[in-house]
Amino acid sequence: MNTEIPKISDFPTGEENTGYAQYFTGKSYLASLTTNKDLNVPIFNVSFEPGARNNWHTHTGGQILIVVGGEGLYQERGNPARLMKSGEVVEIAPNVEHWHGATVDSWFSHLGIACNPTINENIWLEPVTDEIYRDANASVKQ
Amino acid sequence: MNTEIPKISDFPTGEENTGYAQYFTGKSYLASLTTNKDLNVPIFNVSFEPGARNNWHTHTGGQILIVVGGEGLYQERGNPARLMKSGEVVEIAPNVEHWHGATVDSWFSHLGIACNPTINENIWLEPVTDEIYRDANASVKQ
Repeated sequence: MNTEIPKISDFPTGEENTGYAQYFTGKSYLASLTTNKDLNVPIFNVSFEPGARNNWHTHTGGQILIVVGGEGLYQERGNPARLMKSGEVVEIAPNVEHWHGATVDSWFSHLGIACNPTINENIWLEPVTDEIYRDANASVKQ
Repeated sequence: MNTEIPKISDFPTGEENTGYAQYFTGKSYLASLTTNKDLNVPIFNVSFEPGARNNWHTHTGGQILIVVGGEGLYQERGNPARLMKSGEVVEIAPNVEHWHGATVDSWFSHLGIACNPTINENIWLEPVTDEIYRDANASVKQ
């Protein structure tokens, strides 16, 4: 039902991200942008509907987010949430517990790069509670 | 003199790319977007004034271009030039001879990812002649 998704950026939005839905609250969409495994830089465009976010998680190889549309949130465990806007880049070191997603009132798209793919594993943890998500939204809107 | 540069994308344009000027025809601008070397995905925003392009070159580790603003050209040796627009991604395999740059009448910005940075070398070759550049522009405007 892609017809209900607005244009978020110039990048393709792809299909509903059903494969990872168990690790997300709300709907997300996934488009793979690369195919050459020799380059060791797999890139995906991940789009979140308003209110959607992924669970707390870590990447053993690290991750880079490149924001291309809308407004989103990024939070590392124990730190305040950060508002993310188009043109910003977030570098996530290996094994840092974090989550990311849309704000409560905006669609959001970031390119996600799986760093060090030959050794990377994603470790999925518990969902971001409604309370943590509400506080994160409130903190960046002040 | 960044005051003469228009807004090309939401990403920072950075400073005039004097360090690589010897490998470019026309002016380019460079902004480094990453700092964490453990991630092995160095990302730069490279912006070209209209008419600017880099020399023919190869990357022993390969490269990925993510177009974020304006209109540009990408050409591999022996193949037709390709028009590049915001939202497109180009995967350049290791050791493929190619050049990229703005079209003759548009500013252009792409993110450039140096793949396999621990083993990558850039091999710079001859400039793209005015004739090749003119033909490349003509071929994509048809």
